This record gives sequence, structure tokens and C-alpha cells, in this order.
Amino acid sequence: MFRNQYDGDATTWSPQGRLHQVEYALEAIKQGSAAVGVVSNTHTVLVALKRNAEELSSYQKKIVRIDDHVGVAIAGLAPDARVLSNFMRQQALASKMTFNRPIPIKRLVNMIAERAQLNTQEYGKRPYGVGMLVGGCDETGPHLYEFLPSGMVLEYLGTSMGARSQSARTYLERNLQSFPAATREELVLYALRALRDTLPQDHELTRQNVSICVVGKDEKFVLYDDDEETVQWLEKLGDTSPAAARSTAAAAAAAATATAAATSQEQQPEQATEESNPDAMDTN
Amino acid sequence: MFRNQYDGDATTWSPQGRLHQVEYALEAIKQGSAAVGVVSNTHTVLVALKRNAEELSSYQKKIVRIDDHVGVAIAGLAPDARVLSNFMRQQALASKMTFNRPIPIKRLVNMIAERAQLNTQEYGKRPYGVGMLVGGCDETGPHLYEFLPSGMVLEYLGTSMGARSQSARTYLERNLQSFPAATREELVLYALRALRDTLPQDHELTRQNVSICVVGKDEKFVLYDDDEETVQWLEKLGDTSPAAARSTAAAAAAAATATAAATSQEQQPEQATEESNPDAMDTN
Amino acid sequence: MFRNQYDGDATTWSPQGRLHQVEYALEAIKQGSAAVGVVSNTHTVLVALKRNAEELSSYQKKIVRIDDHVGVAIAGLAPDARVLSNFMRQQALASKMTFNRPIPIKRLVNMIAERAQLNTQEYGKRPYGVGMLVGGCDETGPHLYEFLPSGMVLEYLGTSMGARSQSARTYLERNLQSFPAATREELVLYALRALRDTLPQDHELTRQNVSICVVGKDEKFVLYDDDEETVQWLEKLGDTSPAAARSTAAAAAAAATATAAATSQEQQPEQATEESNPDAMDTN
Amino acid sequence: MFRNQYDGDATTWSPQGRLHQVEYALEAIKQGSAAVGVVSNTHTVLVALKRNAEELSSYQKKIVRIDDHVGVAIAGLAPDARVLSNFMRQQALASKMTFNRPIPIKRLVNMIAERAQLNTQEYGKRPYGVGMLVGGCDETGPHLYEFLPSGMVLEYLGTSMGARSQSARTYLERNLQSFPAATREELVLYALRALRDTLPQDHELTRQNVSICVVGKDEKFVLYDDDEETVQWLEKLGDTSPAAARSTAAAAAAAATATAAATSQEQQPEQATEESNPDAMDTN
Amino acid sequence: MFRNQYDGDATTWSPQGRLHQVEYALEAIKQGSAAVGVVSNTHTVLVALKRNAEELSSYQKKIVRIDDHVGVAIAGLAPDARVLSNFMRQQALASKMTFNRPIPIKRLVNMIAERAQLNTQEYGKRPYGVGMLVGGCDETGPHLYEFLPSGMVLEYLGTSMGARSQSARTYLERNLQSFPAATREELVLYALRALRDTLPQDHELTRQNVSICVVGKDEKFVLYDDDEETVQWLEKLGDTSPAAARSTAAAAAAAATATAAATSQEQQPEQATEESNPDAMDTN
Amino acid sequence: MFRNQYDGDATTWSPQGRLHQVEYALEAIKQGSAAVGVVSNTHTVLVALKRNAEELSSYQKKIVRIDDHVGVAIAGLAPDARVLSNFMRQQALASKMTFNRPIPIKRLVNMIAERAQLNTQEYGKRPYGVGMLVGGCDETGPHLYEFLPSGMVLEYLGTSMGARSQSARTYLERNLQSFPAATREELVLYALRALRDTLPQDHELTRQNVSICVVGKDEKFVLYDDDEETVQWLEKLGDTSPAAARSTAAAAAAAATATAAATSQEQQPEQATEESNPDAMDTN
Amino acid sequence: MFRNQYDGDATTWSPQGRLHQVEYALEAIKQGSAAVGVVSNTHTVLVALKRNAEELSSYQKKIVRIDDHVGVAIAGLAPDARVLSNFMRQQALASKMTFNRPIPIKRLVNMIAERAQLNTQEYGKRPYGVGMLVGGCDETGPHLYEFLPSGMVLEYLGTSMGARSQSARTYLERNLQSFPAATREELVLYALRALRDTLPQDHELTRQNVSICVVGKDEKFVLYDDDEETVQWLEKLGDTSPAAARSTAAAAAAAATATAAATSQEQQPEQATEESNPDAMDTN
Repeated sequence: MFRNQYDGDATTWSPQGRLHQVEYALEAIKQGSAAVGVVSNTHTVLVALKRNAEELSSYQKKIVRIDDHVGVAIAGLAPDARVLSNFMRQQALASKMTFNRPIPIKRLVNMIAERAQLNTQEYGKRPYGVGMLVGGCDETGPHLYEFLPSGMVLEYLGTSMGARSQSARTYLERNLQSFPAATREELVLYALRALRDTLPQDHELTRQNVSICVVGKDEKFVLYDDDEETVQWLEKLGDTSPAAARSTAAAAAAAATATAAATSQEQQPEQATEESNPDAMDTN
Repeated sequence: MFRNQYDGDATTWSPQGRLHQVEYALEAIKQGSAAVGVVSNTHTVLVALKRNAEELSSYQKKIVRIDDHVGVAIAGLAPDARVLSNFMRQQALASKMTFNRPIPIKRLVNMIAERAQLNTQEYGKRPYGVGMLVGGCDETGPHLYEFLPSGMVLEYLGTSMGARSQSARTYLERNLQSFPAATREELVLYALRALRDTLPQDHELTRQNVSICVVGKDEKFVLYDDDEETVQWLEKLGDTSPAAARSTAAAAAAAATATAAATSQEQQPEQATEESNPDAMDTN
Repeated sequence: MFRNQYDGDATTWSPQGRLHQVEYALEAIKQGSAAVGVVSNTHTVLVALKRNAEELSSYQKKIVRIDDHVGVAIAGLAPDARVLSNFMRQQALASKMTFNRPIPIKRLVNMIAERAQLNTQEYGKRPYGVGMLVGGCDETGPHLYEFLPSGMVLEYLGTSMGARSQSARTYLERNLQSFPAATREELVLYALRALRDTLPQDHELTRQNVSICVVGKDEKFVLYDDDEETVQWLEKLGDTSPAAARSTAAAAAAAATATAAATSQEQQPEQATEESNPDAMDTN
Repeated sequence: MFRNQYDGDATTWSPQGRLHQVEYALEAIKQGSAAVGVVSNTHTVLVALKRNAEELSSYQKKIVRIDDHVGVAIAGLAPDARVLSNFMRQQALASKMTFNRPIPIKRLVNMIAERAQLNTQEYGKRPYGVGMLVGGCDETGPHLYEFLPSGMVLEYLGTSMGARSQSARTYLERNLQSFPAATREELVLYALRALRDTLPQDHELTRQNVSICVVGKDEKFVLYDDDEETVQWLEKLGDTSPAAARSTAAAAAAAATATAAATSQEQQPEQATEESNPDAMDTN
Repeated sequence: MFRNQYDGDATTWSPQGRLHQVEYALEAIKQGSAAVGVVSNTHTVLVALKRNAEELSSYQKKIVRIDDHVGVAIAGLAPDARVLSNFMRQQALASKMTFNRPIPIKRLVNMIAERAQLNTQEYGKRPYGVGMLVGGCDETGPHLYEFLPSGMVLEYLGTSMGARSQSARTYLERNLQSFPAATREELVLYALRALRDTLPQDHELTRQNVSICVVGKDEKFVLYDDDEETVQWLEKLGDTSPAAARSTAAAAAAAATATAAATSQEQQPEQATEESNPDAMDTN
Repeated sequence: MFRNQYDGDATTWSPQGRLHQVEYALEAIKQGSAAVGVVSNTHTVLVALKRNAEELSSYQKKIVRIDDHVGVAIAGLAPDARVLSNFMRQQALASKMTFNRPIPIKRLVNMIAERAQLNTQEYGKRPYGVGMLVGGCDETGPHLYEFLPSGMVLEYLGTSMGARSQSARTYLERNLQSFPAATREELVLYALRALRDTLPQDHELTRQNVSICVVGKDEKFVLYDDDEETVQWLEKLGDTSPAAARSTAAAAAAAATATAAATSQEQQPEQATEESNPDAMDTN
Repeated sequence: MFRNQYDGDATTWSPQGRLHQVEYALEAIKQGSAAVGVVSNTHTVLVALKRNAEELSSYQKKIVRIDDHVGVAIAGLAPDARVLSNFMRQQALASKMTFNRPIPIKRLVNMIAERAQLNTQEYGKRPYGVGMLVGGCDETGPHLYEFLPSGMVLEYLGTSMGARSQSARTYLERNLQSFPAATREELVLYALRALRDTLPQDHELTRQNVSICVVGKDEKFVLYDDDEETVQWLEKLGDTSPAAARSTAAAAAAAATATAAATSQEQQPEQATEESNPDAMDTN
């Protein structure tokens, strides 16, 4: 991408007003497996693809509980994610003890965003190498936020991050208007369909490789990892592999990618190669 | 622009007496979407163009409330803007609690300017990557200040920052003498017309992409985001796209740009390219 | 591997979103002699190959007791391992004194993981050069964790690290389903067979070069170093050299390696050379 | 000027015994608009050329009040000037409160000089980018000092700094002997004539672009910005553009410059180019 | 050896997972004169070759007393050795005063090892340039440890460090089984014969150039420097020059070296040259 | 002079055992105008050549009073000189208040020497760029010391520093034996004659450009700047320009320089050029 | 000597296990004028050659009193020597006040050695540029130590440092056996003869250029600088120039040098050149 003398340090501006080290940190997120989040009027759903480095290990955790009313799906460096989610848990606990109420999700997200921003402005640190979808339900209703290591935070109705997440976003955009009124189950299915579209050829969603988390107005954080419920949802999906979907989605995605690629993603081929070596670093 | 050995550090002077890193930070502002501010004898109006990275997300906040009597429009890195606006909010609150009166706007702006200057003179930090239009009304009347990451602060009758803001400034300069006596509504319309001139071809101002904020002598900070009032104002604008306006403004702007380009904006073409990739970094 | 301008510092991202210094630290582990861990429903077993730099010295310690309920097998820089295992011992002791119960193994592993992550994000430190298999039994049953200097921690049913550990993992994967129900002795034999597969040609497991450690639900940490029990287990193994095993395993391993080598292990030949000089640094 | 390996740091001597970074900082002053100071037996007068980056903004402040008995005219980076003048104001206030008398001007100047010297001898800071004419009247009478970012301070009867200030100095040198006995008005006119000589062709002094400040033995600091008095003085000047004056002054100036240029100002052409782009940085 | 961009700093990993600066520090030890240590069931013996830079000076100390029950033989930078042995003496004294018993030797060695490891992981320090044979007798019997600047510690039955120490190790390996039962005198003679094998041609062991230290279960630290006892032991050695011994040892050593040289000691010739200039640095 | 990789830092030795940054700092002194000091049995006299950058400014101070019994003549960077002379004044004052007697001159000089040495041994500072002749009279009689930024201090009977000071030293050496018994006036004349020999062709000593200071056993520090006494002394000198003197002195000086130039002053031509640009930095 | 990438920092090892910056600091000592020390059973004598930069100055101090029972002769950077000898004086004083007895010389030397070692192991400092002969008499009799900036300390019967000191050492080695029984006067003469051999052709020892210091069992530190006693001793020397002596000594010295030169002193010619420019730095 930008290989030059301005990219050795997060505190050095390029002549075009960019911080290359921050942009490189974002690349670590693209190497993580995909995560999807969607929000209805009553629920927030996070789903994520678990990647297990070896058959011998347990799956890496892709969705983490922060408190009864909020969880995060992560993409990027697992050790960095652990540091940030531990910090969030402490803040949630402190809020409960001090104010006797669940921490507002926006405040929680802003706390890690502030911490992340510091690492983009002080010499001798590095930007975090992880992105997060922070989803939950507080007094103001269900919310979904995307956190990036630049310190950027945006609220979404539905979004996706990680490898091949563009395909998921394309699906979400086309179904955007159906989310607000969706039932709990419908929302899970929307999320799973979006996640399915991030799978490479010959892969499918399975009970083992999918994490599903639901938080609702009247429902505490639930995490489905290798559960019977997962099986039932996957059955309702119909096709669990993206093959069929692809044929129709491909055209749209291709068009969307075509223009984007010209500017920011010229390396797509190289990245694809990286992905076949996912465990070189602890990307999650 | 200046690519050489003197531009790696905000604490290194070039042989011409320039601080290149500070100048590069200003480039980050040019990549943000445009914001416009105008002042009459009774009101300050800020308007800004919201850019949404994806349809799925909420629009990025371009105008932020600091206190009942003052708000800021931002252009540049959103995380840096959050740090600075949080700092301003704390200062405004502290002033209220200590002196029992709204903080004078000039003092508020000088506080962030001092903080920004430090980042241009100490090794291991970097200049902020955000500019701000700070507008409001205090005991001395309506005011509009432009804050730059160099620590520079100037008071304006009307100004603009962000992408293609030169066109807006051209419009403002031609209508300068009408601002002082303008009514609340007229002032909003002047600001919107200036903002309209920053739009690229085939774009127009809409209820969704415009933020409008008004502060007056007898009126607290009001923010119109996706409001009915916005619609009414846009209708009064007549043409919401710059196409027509361009034909007449083009000549003047072209002339103005011609001389400027010769000295400081030789890269205009390159920048234009950058702008088609606005979300590469969290520019706002 | 990646020799370029982005690999001098653990706080510098490569344009592909990698931290090369962290990846180089992982190479130090590959130069250590192999260690294997397996878990049943009742026991955790760690076995490791001792490498003695010279006949005159005692064998280097490959398995270290942390507490009655937990031990670690190490691969990589011995001095770094000592620092980390001393730290673990102190934490285990502190937990006992404060909470009057054995420290949960997961918490113990997370403590060193957090410490290791810091060394990947602060300038002026370096990532640790050692990996660890942390095995034991706490209130929640037997556990086996792999710790890496990136700060990565994963739970395993069985795994291996160090020189030629891929062969051991291949064996473990093929016998995975037999571990949970295995008896204490069977579990030790599974571990030793996996370890045997990491031996270079013309080497065999002996009473002297094997360390075996067992922790169980009702059994405190026991370490067999040059013991009679070791002899008996080795006799039950049948062939103590990998020669025979190799002929069958080779095909599978070769296949597995073939694809992996294409991406991340192109240097295999060079590393092999390094291994014939194992005592150049204090790899263990 | 001196582009080589010795100019990256204010703490590195060149083989010729020079501190290039300090010299580069002086260049920032040459890019500021001109300021002139003169002293009689009873008054100190500072005048300066205001440069407004855009018609929309208020003029940048060129003369700042420090206390009733002292003011400063600045040339160079405005944010650096603000830091130093704030510091001076605090010192003046502290002196008043501690000793119950106006701070001696010489002591005030030495205080910023000491602070500036530190920035030329400690790694990780940078020399200030601003020069100041500090003028006023204390118990020992009227004084005019020139402060430079090197930490240099000299007392003057009359001097000038900023763009094209050499022409002003030439005028002042030729009229030096008339200053001591000059009346208040005569002194202002001497200062304005010197300032007029710094104007580029086709420019003239106007009510808007001139700041005039007077301090006297029996007269507190007065600042004339866009005042009726300014108009009257300008009328008395006769010609407000340097055109006529130039024809006579040119010869003398040319001669003076000729020798100087040979040694230190070989870049004059390049600098001239810079000056046509005055607002690239916040030079004042 | 490894001359490249990864060897400037002890906190930088090479792509092969090595810390070159640590390995270079080990080279300083190879330039020190040889030291030998052996252990029986009852005694620990250290012997070392004193090298006197000039006839005028006293011999440099090669063996230093730490406490009544422990001493160290050093090879490498004398000033670094002094720092570490002073530290050991303080620890031994503190242990005596706090616990009222001699410090366990293993604990003592681990203390300097921990200190040395820090210098391999923090920027701005350097690894120590000295190795030590720490020998003595504590409650658990006689012990001999080798300390290296990497922070590595190993227990030995007999070992050697410094110039040409490989020859001594070859001798020790061939006589390993005789050490445990050896009498005090036999143990001294074994050590001296090993030391003799490190001598270059035409050199011999003399009363002046040999330091001998003995610690036993019932015998406090004794140091023989230029003593009558030394003379008697040397007489019992028979031949004090390695010439005769060499003829038989050469074959074995040559074989051993042959393989080793191929990997890690390619510079042997250069080192030999260095040794003829022993006092260039304060190697001991 | 020595332009290479060893001259970027005062804490880096060259292979020849030199500290180039310290030597470069000495060059700053050679660019200052000349100062001369001489000592008799009863008096110390300092004289110096004032250089005024412009006619408009007061002359730069070349001789500064520290206390009633001691003053300094400076050559080099004026801001550095101010820092050091302020420090000396504080020490002199502190000594008076603590011990109730004038500070011994030697102790005073050693204090700044120690401070200067620190700046040659700690990274991140720079050697001072100023030399000083410290002259005065304490309980042990009249003294003259030369202070250099290396931290070097030597006592002299008479010496000179600054531009062309070699000519003054040549004169002083030839008249050395006459100083001890010289009267106050004779001593002043010796100093002035030495100073006269440092003048370039076509320059002469004048009432305006000469500073004279006298301290005696029974005479407090007196400074003659632009005084009637100066005129009388200059009249007694006879010729105030070096022209005549040169013709005779030239031969001797030339011879002396000839040998010196071969080794250390090969750049003389370049330096001469520098001197025609004396005010580029604040050399004094 | 060793000009490469490993010599910029005292904390960087070369691949051969050397610290080049430390070795370069030793070069500063070789540029100092010679000093000689000898010890008998009753006395320690230090003699040194004073070099006066100019006739006008006092001779630089080559021998410094630390306490009644100990003095030091220095070679190398005078400001560094002052720092270290001040430190020694403070330690001697503190010892007297705390323990009521003269500080043991060995302890005194170890104190500066420890301080010097620190400067070879911490980034941002530099090794001292001075060597010292520390001579005196304490409770254990007369002693002579050589201190080097590496932190190295050795006791000597007689030795020499500084320019051409090899010739002195050759003389001392040939007369070594006569020192212990020598009388006070004989010892002084031995030292002077050794010093004489360090003189370049056409130079001789004189009352002015020789410093002699004697400390004895019953004799406090006495320093002879330009004394009548010096004259008497020089007369007893017979020939005060090395010319005659040289003819005989030359052969031996040449032989000794021949082998040494091959390894470590290839630059001898260059150094000789340096010596003709002795005052470039403050070598003493």
C-alpha cells in the first residue's frame, strides 16, 4: 500500500495527511475471521466465524461477554483483544458498583476509543491490532457499535468486519429495511446469512464454527457456542455454504469491489494469500 | 509537497523555517467533508456536510455541542476531534462551576490552541489531525473562530474548512457585507449556499447529509440533524446541487484558485484522488 | 522470512498488518527441543525431550513445577522461561495465601499472557523468546494451555511445540478421540509416542533424555526425570526410535507440510541447519 | 542555506560551530509581516503590518499588550508568539503582585530569552519560531528590545523585523539622530515611514493593515487598530505607498544588500517566492 | 558471524529467532584465559590460568572469593566481573545476616542470572561481557554452576570456559566417571590436567600463572596463588606443558572440533589472532 | 575538519579518541570578536572588541560584571554566555551570603567548568558555545582564567580568545616578562595593544568599539564602555590600527601560524569567510 | 582501527565481543603526555611530563593530591580527570570523617572503577576519557594502581601511561628487581629515567616540565613542581634528554614494538601526527 519513509511511526504524518501505521494496524483486522452484527428494535445479535488453528485446540473465542447487557465480537490480534475486553469488563463492573446501573454502551465504547487514540499519538506505543463489534442493550435500547484501533467509533444498524466482510455488508445493505421490525429469530437468521456470504468456496457454516450471541430488551447476554440452537438455526438457513448465494451476490459485490479496489485495495491478491496462512500471527 | 529530510518530526525546522509535520497535519483537514460557519449581529450558524462511510452506519457527527452557548463543526480525524471536544466540554463545565457563568468562547478556543501548540514543540507527540469551527454566543455577542492543529486561532465573519472549501469561501467573500444584518433564517441560507458550493458534481444537499446548528443571543445551541426544518430550508435554497451555481461561480473560483494553486496547491490533482477514498482514515 | 524495514521493532506494523518482531520471537521456540502435552478426563500429562549441551552438564530442565496442581513444559530461551516461571510461582503462592485455594490454571496463564502482550506494545522491550505448555488440574478439571510470546493463549486437548513438533501434532490429531477416556498410563504412552515422532533419524527416547510429568484430579504434580518408571514406560512403547513410525507417518506429515511450507516455512532447510547448532543460544 | 547532516537537531554543532536548527528557526521570522520599533527620550512606538489571510477573517494580531507599560510586536509563528506573550503577561502580573511595581522591561525580556535558550540546548524540543520587538517605558525610561528564538536579546534605538525589514532598517539608520528629541507624533511618523519601505510594489499602508502602539513616560500602552488616529497619521505621511520612496531608497538599499547577499542571503530569490505564500504556516 | 541489521540491539530478534547482541557478548568470554571447575562427592575445585598483561603488573585475579563456602572463576571483561562478584558478595552477606546461614549456591547463581537476563530485554543496557564458574559447597553438598551473560545457568560435574576451553572439556568428558570418588588432591590434579590442555604450544603451567581454589564439605574456601602447594601439585602433574598430552588428545579434539567448527566456530583463525593481543580490552 | 560518522553526538568517541562535537563547539568561540586578558602583581585587566550587528543597536556586551572582585569577557554565543554568567552571579551571591566573603575565583571557574563537562558526557544536551576569560582579584591576589566549553580551565598571565586572537597571543608572549611589575595604566595599554593586533585591515580601536575592565587589589570592578578614559588610553597607544604593527608582527605571526596551520587550521580560509558574516548567529 | 557499524555506542558489542567505544576512549589516554609510577618497600613515586599549551598559561596539572596519603597522575581529558579526582577527594574526606582513618587506596580506586564501568553499560553516557596512576601509602604499605576508563584496575610495581609510554615500560621492566629496596632518592631517579625515555627527540626534562610526587610510609604527599629539588634530581640523572639512552634502548624497544605493532598499533604513524597537535582537545 504505502511503503515509504512516513510509515515507521504512528506519530508521523505523511505529506498527504495520513498516519500510515494506523492504517497498517487496520490490516490486522482484515486478517481476522469475519464477524457480523445486526440490530432490531428489540435485540442486538452478533455472530462470528470461529477459526481453529489446529483440530487439537479449542476454537478461539470470537465473541466475549462484557456484562449482562453487552458483548463484543472481535477481529484481529487476540492478545490485544484480551487486553481491551478485560479493560471493558473492569469499567462495566466499576460502573455497576459506583452508579448501581449497567454502563451505557456508548460510554463503554468511548472509553476504549480514547485509550486507542492515545496509542496513535504517543511515540513508543503502537496502535492496537484489533477491531470490535460492541453490541448490547441499555436504557436507550439495542445498540451496535464498531470500534477501530484508530479510536474511531460509529453506530451501525448492521455491519461486518474481518476477512471477506465486504460480502456480508453487501447482503446487509440490501436487507437493511427489514431489521428494525425483525423478530429475535429473524434477526439471527439475517446475521447468519450475512456471515455465510463471507465464507470461501467449499466452506460452510457448522455447529462448531459459528458463535452466536443475542442480547435483548428483556433478555440478558446469551452465547451459543456449539449448541443445539445453533443447529436449528442453521437448518432454517437452508443452504449453509455461500455457493448458491454467491452466484447472485457475486455480480453486486464484484461491482462494489471494482471501484473500491482501484483506490484502496490494490493488494487484495496478496491479502488473499495471507489468509491461507491465518495462524502466523494470533489473528482471531 | 515537501518530501525531504526535514519532515519526519514536528520539532525539526526546515531550512526555510517551516515545520513540515505541522503542514502535513493540515492536509488531514482538507480530506474531511466541508463545514461552514457564519456570524450575524445576533446569531452564529454552523452547517456541515455529513459523509456516511456506508449506508449501514449512522452518519458521522460533524457538529458537536460543547455547552448551551457554543458548538463546534469539525473536519479531519474524528478520534482527534473527540479528544479535543471532550476537553472543551470539561473546560466549559469547570468554568460554569467555578465562575457560575458560561465560558467566554475566546478563552475556550485558546485552551485547545495551547494544547495543540505543545504537540508541535515536543518530541514524541504528533500535531492533532483535525480543524474546528468554534461558534457561539457569549457576553460579548456572537463569535466564530477557526482552530487549526498548528495552534493557530483566528476570528472570522464567515469561513469554511474541509474538502473543496475554497468554493465556499469564494461565495462567503462575495456576500460578506450582508451577514451582520441578516435574520436567523437568512444566515442559515447563506451558510447552506456556501456549503452547496463545496459539493462535487452530481451531488446535492439533502435532509440526511446536512447538519445545521444555530446559537443566538437569546437562543441556546440547537442542532438540526435530519429534521423537518432542514427540509424547509433546503426548499428555500431553490437548487440544492451546485450545478447551476457552479456555472457562475466557476469563473471567479477558477481565477482565485489559479494563483493560489501556483504556490501551495500544486498537488490538487492528487488530493482529488484521495477524496474519492474518504474513509481510508477516520476523516470526518 | 520477512526481512525489511518493518521488522526492527515490536511496535511497528508492517503494511500487511503484521508485527514481524513478534513473529521472529516465535522462531526461538521452534529451535527449542520438543515438548508434548495431552489431557484426559482425569489427568494432564506433559513430556519433553531434554537436550544436553554437553555430557558434562546436567540436562537442561524442560518441565518445571509451578505448584502442586500445575507445571509447565518450555521451549525456547531458558533465561526467559526462568523469569516467567518464577513469576508464575509467585502468583500461585500469592493466590494460595490470599484466597486459600490453588490458583485457577486459566487465570495463571492469562497473567503471563498479559505480561507478554505488554512486551509487544511498548518500545524498548522485546517479546519473550519462549513458549510454554501449561498443564494441570484445578477445580474445573484437567487443563492444557499453550502460551506464546505474542500473548496468545489457547486451550488444547493435546499439542506440541519446539523442533519438529509438527510430526507430534500429526500423531495427536489422529488419536484425538482416544484421549478423554485414557487411563493415566495410556495417556503417558500417547504423549511419549507423539514425542518419539519428533526425534531426528538415529535418535531414540531414553531414560536420560525424557522428562515426564503427571498431574491428576487426585494426584499432585509428579516429575519423572531419569526414573525407573520412565524405563518401564519406554519399554511399553516398543520402538523408542521414530524410524519405524516414520515410514507410515511420513506420508501424512509430508502432505501436511507440503501446503504449509509453501506459505510460512520456506526456510525449513535453513532452520534444520540451525538445529545442528542447538547451544548457540540458550534454547531449551 | 546549510543542508547537511548537522541540521536535524538544535543540540548538534556543525563543524563550523553553528547550530543550524536555530538558524532555520530565524527563517520563520523573515516570513512574518514587518514590524518596526523606535524610541525617543519620552516614548516608545511600535508599528506593524497586519496581513489578513483572507478577507473573511479579522486581521491577525501583530501587536499585543503585556502590561500598562509594555507591549510586543511579533513576527513569525503566531501560536509560538501566543505562548511567549502569555508567559510574559503572567510574569508582569506576578511582579506587580510581589513587588508592587511594573516589571522592569529588561528583566521581562531576559525571562523569555532564558526560556528560549533552553530550547536550543535540550534534545526533544525545538527553538521557538517567533521574534519579538518588546517596547515600553519603565523607571529607567523608554526601551526597545529585540528578542530572537536563539535566546539573543539586544537593545535598539530603532529596528525592524519580518519580511523586507532590511529596507526599514536602512531608513531608520539614516534618521537615527532625529529620534531622541522627536515628539510623540514625529516618532509615530518615523516608524510608519520605515514600515512603508517594507511594502511590496503596489501596496500601501491603510487604516486596516496598520497597527500602531505608543507607550510613554506619562502615557500607558495605547493600541491603534483601524482607528481614526491612524487615518490622520497616514495622511501626514503623504505618500502611503513605497513607490516614490523606493526610487531614492533603492540605490542605498541595493548597495547595502549587495554585500550582505553575497554571504548570507544567497537564497533571496527562493525566499521571495515563499513570501507570496504567506499563510502556508501561521506566520504573523 | 552474523553481521547484519538485526545485531545492533539486545532487544531485537533476528528473523531466525536469535538475539545477536547476546551472542556477541559470549564472544568476550572466549577471549578470556581459560578456567576449569570440577566436583567430587566432597569437594569443588576451580583452577584458572592467570594472564598478566605486562611483567610489571600483578596478575589479574581469575578466582574470587564470594563467601567461606563459595568462589567464582571468571572469563571475560574484568570490570563486568567485578560488578557481578561485588553483587554476589553483598547477597551472600545479606543472606547470612537475615537467615543466619550460608546462601544456597543455586540461589546465588540465579540472582545474577536474573540480573543478567534483564540486560538482554531492556533497551539502553548491554549484556554483561563475562562468564563465571561458580563453585562451592552448601547444605546440599558440592556444586559447580556455569553462568553466562544470556542469563543461562547450568549445573556441571566439570566444565571449562575461556580461550581454548574445548580441549579442557574433551579431557573432562573422558574422565567424568572418576570425579565423584576422587580425593581432594586427585580432584585438583584432574582440574590442572584439563587446564594444561588449554595452553598454547610452548607454554606451561607455572606457580605464577595458575590459580587454584578448593572448597569442601568440611573445608572453607582456600585460594592458592603463587603458593608452595601449587608447586607440589604441578610436580605431580608430570608434564606441565600440553605438548605431550596434545599428541594423544589432538586426534579426539580435532574430531570433536571438526563438526563443531563447521557450524559455530568458523572464525577460529581470527580469534587466534585476537588472542595474541589479549590486553586490548580488559578480558580476564 | 572532521566530518564523519563520529561527530553527531558529544557522547561518541572517534576512533582517535576525540569528541568531535566538543571540538565543533570550540569553533563557535573563534567566530566571536576578540577578548584579551592580562595580569600584573596588582591588577587584572580585560579588554574586548565590541561588534555591533547594526548601527541601530546598542553594542553587544562583551564584558560582564559578576561581583565586585570579578568579571568575565566572553567570546561565542551570547545566549549561552548569559546563562553561564547568571549562574556565576548566583554563586557569587550565595558565597557572600553563606561565607560572608567574596567567592574565590578559582572555585567560581571550577563551578562552570563542572557544569560544562556534564554537557559533554550526557546524551541529549550540547556543549556550551561560549568561551570566557574570567579575571579578578581575590584573597590570593589577581587571577586570570580561561574557561572553555569542554570544561577545560587554565590559569594565564595573559591570553586572548575569539577571532584572530592568535595575533594577540603572539604580542602577549613577546611582552610576558613585563606584566608582573606593570602599573595599572601600563597593563591596560598592554591589553589594548594585544587587542589592536586582532583587528582586520582598515579597522581601528575606537571609544565605541572597545570595552575595558579593571579589577585590582584595592580596586573594585570598573567597566569603561564608551568613556573618556578610553579615549585617553587610546591616544597613548599611538596608532590605533594594526596596520603599522602588523608589518613587524606579521613575520613572527606568520611563522607561528605556518606550523600550526599544517595540523589544525587547514580551514583558515573558510573561517575567514565566515567572519565576514558575523551576525548569522549570536556570536559575541 | 575498527571503523564500522558497531562502534557508535558503548552498549553495543561487536561480533568479536568487543566494545569499540570503550577502546576509542583509551585512545584519548595515549594522546596525553606521559606519566610514570614506581613503588618501593617504603615509598610510592609518581612523575609526569607537563605540557603547556602556550607559554602564557600555567602548566596543566598532571599530578593531583587526593589526600595526605594518596595522589594521582593523569593522562587524557583534563575535565574528565577533574570530575573523577573531585569525586576521589570527597570519598577520602568522607572516609576520614566516618571511619576516622585514611581511605584504603584499593577501595578508593575501586570506587572510581565502578563509576567508570557504569558509563560503559548505560546508553546515553560515554566512557571517561582519562587514565590515572593512583599512588600512595596506606596501612598495608605503598601501592600503585592503574585506572582505565573501561573500569579496569590493576596493581603495578611500576608502570607508565600516555604518549610514548611504551619506552618507559621497557625501561621499568629491565629494572623491576631494583625497586623494592630502592631508597627514596633512587626511586625518584628510576621514575625520572623512565619518564625521560618517553621524550621525543630534541626534548629534555626540565625544572619546568616535570612534576614529581612522593608518598612514603612516614611521609605525607609532597609535590615538587618547578622546585629546587627537581633541579638537583635532574642533575643526578646526568643526561636529561633521551638521545643517549635511546641508542641503547632503541633496539629493545623496537623489538618489543615490532610484534605489538603488528596487531594493535598499526596506526602509530597517524597517532604521531596527532601528537604534534596536542591542544586540539584538553588532553593532559
